[in-house]
Amino acid sequence: MAEPMEPAFGADGLVPAIAQDRTTGEVLTLAYMNHDAWERTRQTRLATFWSRSRQRLWQKGETSGNVLRVHGIRLDCDGDAVLLLVDPTGPACHTGARSCFFNEVDAVADTSR
Amino acid sequence: MAEPMEPAFGADGLVPAIAQDRTTGEVLTLAYMNHDAWERTRQTRLATFWSRSRQRLWQKGETSGNVLRVHGIRLDCDGDAVLLLVDPTGPACHTGARSCFFNEVDAVADTSR
Repeated sequence: MAEPMEPAFGADGLVPAIAQDRTTGEVLTLAYMNHDAWERTRQTRLATFWSRSRQRLWQKGETSGNVLRVHGIRLDCDGDAVLLLVDPTGPACHTGARSCFFNEVDAVADTSR
Repeated sequence: MAEPMEPAFGADGLVPAIAQDRTTGEVLTLAYMNHDAWERTRQTRLATFWSRSRQRLWQKGETSGNVLRVHGIRLDCDGDAVLLLVDPTGPACHTGARSCFFNEVDAVADTSR
């Protein structure tokens, strides 16, 4: 079986893409790509996503300047998820945080109530 | 603004969840959670997902024994993505690979054709 070199886009035309700092290993953000975003990311080496809220292509950092330079791209075993190995040029989150994943949740639910 | 302590499930009732090896930083897999999967993951500390293909709850490793022990849980800035920091007990991928993200793709598209 040939390895998938294009993502398996979902029924909505999108595939989730994880951006991971290739140096620190930190998971920075998760966003979505349509086929155009995928192609632009590969061509420009700058992470480009499809904004579901704004319904348009969106190059990460196009306003803030905090682009994600793409060093490597991987697909998962069945091709329906993308992993971008990136060099961030600044905070990846629009809040100014280095990573979007800053909300810590207790691992064990409170079952006493 | 209070931090979201429950994910913002999508219109389909699902939220994507990334499992990352908390020791090596390797991104192991991406799967989906519905509310039940989220609750079970928190209560059991074993990564539990909603299988979209089988349309049922699925505790990772329930067949293979390769469970993902959940050490920490984070939500992203707007709560619509989950990051699980896990200790894997074996290969995370059903192919036997340590990570599902083993398909490397060239970062630059071939624009010559």
